[in-house]
Amino acid sequence: VKSSIIALLTDFGDQDFFVASMKGVIAGIHPGSRIIDITHRVPSHDVDAAGFILFAVCGYFPAGTVFLTVVDPGVGTDRRILLAEAAERFFIAPDNGVLSRVLDRGNARVRRIIPHEFSLSRVGRTFEGRDVMAPAAARLAAGAAREEFGPVIVDYKRRPAGDADERRDRVTGRIVYQDKFGNMITNITEETAGRFARRIDRPVVIRASERSIPAGEGYTSVGRGEALFVTGSLGYLEIAVREGSAAERLGMRVGDSVDLVPVPLKEKET
Amino acid sequence: VKSSIIALLTDFGDQDFFVASMKGVIAGIHPGSRIIDITHRVPSHDVDAAGFILFAVCGYFPAGTVFLTVVDPGVGTDRRILLAEAAERFFIAPDNGVLSRVLDRGNARVRRIIPHEFSLSRVGRTFEGRDVMAPAAARLAAGAAREEFGPVIVDYKRRPAGDADERRDRVTGRIVYQDKFGNMITNITEETAGRFARRIDRPVVIRASERSIPAGEGYTSVGRGEALFVTGSLGYLEIAVREGSAAERLGMRVGDSVDLVPVPLKEKET
Amino acid sequence: VKSSIIALLTDFGDQDFFVASMKGVIAGIHPGSRIIDITHRVPSHDVDAAGFILFAVCGYFPAGTVFLTVVDPGVGTDRRILLAEAAERFFIAPDNGVLSRVLDRGNARVRRIIPHEFSLSRVGRTFEGRDVMAPAAARLAAGAAREEFGPVIVDYKRRPAGDADERRDRVTGRIVYQDKFGNMITNITEETAGRFARRIDRPVVIRASERSIPAGEGYTSVGRGEALFVTGSLGYLEIAVREGSAAERLGMRVGDSVDLVPVPLKEKET
Repeated sequence: VKSSIIALLTDFGDQDFFVASMKGVIAGIHPGSRIIDITHRVPSHDVDAAGFILFAVCGYFPAGTVFLTVVDPGVGTDRRILLAEAAERFFIAPDNGVLSRVLDRGNARVRRIIPHEFSLSRVGRTFEGRDVMAPAAARLAAGAAREEFGPVIVDYKRRPAGDADERRDRVTGRIVYQDKFGNMITNITEETAGRFARRIDRPVVIRASERSIPAGEGYTSVGRGEALFVTGSLGYLEIAVREGSAAERLGMRVGDSVDLVPVPLKEKET
Repeated sequence: VKSSIIALLTDFGDQDFFVASMKGVIAGIHPGSRIIDITHRVPSHDVDAAGFILFAVCGYFPAGTVFLTVVDPGVGTDRRILLAEAAERFFIAPDNGVLSRVLDRGNARVRRIIPHEFSLSRVGRTFEGRDVMAPAAARLAAGAAREEFGPVIVDYKRRPAGDADERRDRVTGRIVYQDKFGNMITNITEETAGRFARRIDRPVVIRASERSIPAGEGYTSVGRGEALFVTGSLGYLEIAVREGSAAERLGMRVGDSVDLVPVPLKEKET
Repeated sequence: VKSSIIALLTDFGDQDFFVASMKGVIAGIHPGSRIIDITHRVPSHDVDAAGFILFAVCGYFPAGTVFLTVVDPGVGTDRRILLAEAAERFFIAPDNGVLSRVLDRGNARVRRIIPHEFSLSRVGRTFEGRDVMAPAAARLAAGAAREEFGPVIVDYKRRPAGDADERRDRVTGRIVYQDKFGNMITNITEETAGRFARRIDRPVVIRASERSIPAGEGYTSVGRGEALFVTGSLGYLEIAVREGSAAERLGMRVGDSVDLVPVPLKEKET
């Protein structure tokens, strides 16, 4: 499957010259490519956030898309560059676990990119995003065979996705992403939540930050400024505050633990 | 008139996965489309700001452009999605009045989009921008007939544009937009101002924040840090501070009232 | 040499309608163009920062690229618009010295753009980026001959690049750019530093902010939070703090003076 789309995801920010030099390199090697920015505002070095964003968008791009991710606290070390193939899409990224979520599902094939084949020679220290990864992405999107990039490896780094844990009387998960609106996305899927609710045969609430947060059918099922949880657009339970920020209002942060529990007997379901 | 341009305007910010998933969907449905970002940094839920930006740019895009606007405090409610046609351009947006400024002029034809025809089926709650509006924009730009999207309606929501009010001794307007430089754009057009000045046959100043702000022929007609008003690039009077921010220096905000009045007799025209 | 790429660099920010109206104009005049954003987040009116970014990226774009730069504190004055040609690339920018770094090297040919030939006629004050420069860039990328834009001039404004100064016992330079990560890029090239170190036949350190900053082979050659200097991806010495911000940690700012000096005898080279 082929596509000329190269989707970029970095923590380089929007204000410097890093991303633009990568785009220039890509446009020079593959004039017919189509570059789409995912975002360049991943928090600096936040591999987990980048991995989540990549996971959130990749299924919505056409088969054949080349995803180029550069988020890496180990920059300047001898950490490897990967070319992975999964679910008919390609992923170029440092070997730091950022691809764990997207390689989790599907039969992934992962290669180690041999840099000298594709790199640019310039003055100064190598900027891998510009000098190795961008050229590799451009050549791949232009039709180069995967085999040319380097050998298949199996010992690439994995980061545990940390799925929610279903127990007898609760589902224990955690906040994995905070969006711009302050909504807090958990790692509890709609399926897990539904199965748990059917098993205990009781309505459920989320316990987090010492509060009980009720389920809502939409943002308007609670008053303004009140918290609720909904199934978000990615299929995960998500804590929101109507016309407000759950992060601020509830003092929550990525990594915080949350529990899906039966509605306490003295409470009423909303 | 046809064009493959899809121009995106949202309040989703630049740091999350929302916009990228919309772009992926568009690129998948219409590979030959050209996506142009207007901005994704409309203040959250600020329908008026979005409407003004759309109005400010739409005339500069070629005929046939599809403008896709997603700014909506009513997300998750059963509010309708519109496909409007005006001045040879297409507008897809929620039915919350964000299109009022662009539909004001010209013969608008507005349809209600029937979602199921164009939507994606995925896990999780529907994200209308990605699952309904992006597919609709892509299909429209790819050449689908308007009739396929839904029936013509006339009861779509309008927000009063709030034009300036010309009175005997003054023109009363208000600040409708603050730009990045802190310039404050009013809703007083150059034509209204010119007609008023000719009628009263006196030079005019703007009264705002308890100050008299003189007309300037350009930013250099006053000293650094001083306020002036000019006709901005959209044809509206605009309050600026030379090499500074009018918003900060004058303590002005969007919505503030301003008056165009004759120069007081004791003052001299600049 | 021809290319359909138009690369945009402005200080207009990402949140307003300025950039989008320029893109609409370009897409209308030259539907086959490819617009690539360098950045629109140059600090307001910072001609030096814009000039450095342009210099940093232009060599990575293909020959024939048209670079359109709009960063200008003199907006609204009668300052000229330039079309420069250097190293097989084209540069459209105000005549304020922003092109000094890119015109420094290579045989530059500079023209003054005669606006009326290419400008749009609209209501309101002329917005040169949208009404003069964007149309010029689009027509140039579409194949218009340079001669049509205006006469060659030689008295365009130059800003001294401020190269580092090699003396008997030191190289004196300064910080010319701060990137998103807080790394401080100096104007001391790798070649100058190498020549100086060979001549004095001693290891060198950078003296800045009353500290001695050692050379590092990569970010991991010092402890976390410690400062080092490396050759950056543009070939200049760059001061960094491992997993931190040199700007914050060392209290440095763009314009600060730095000295490359021999390692003091009592110190050991790292």
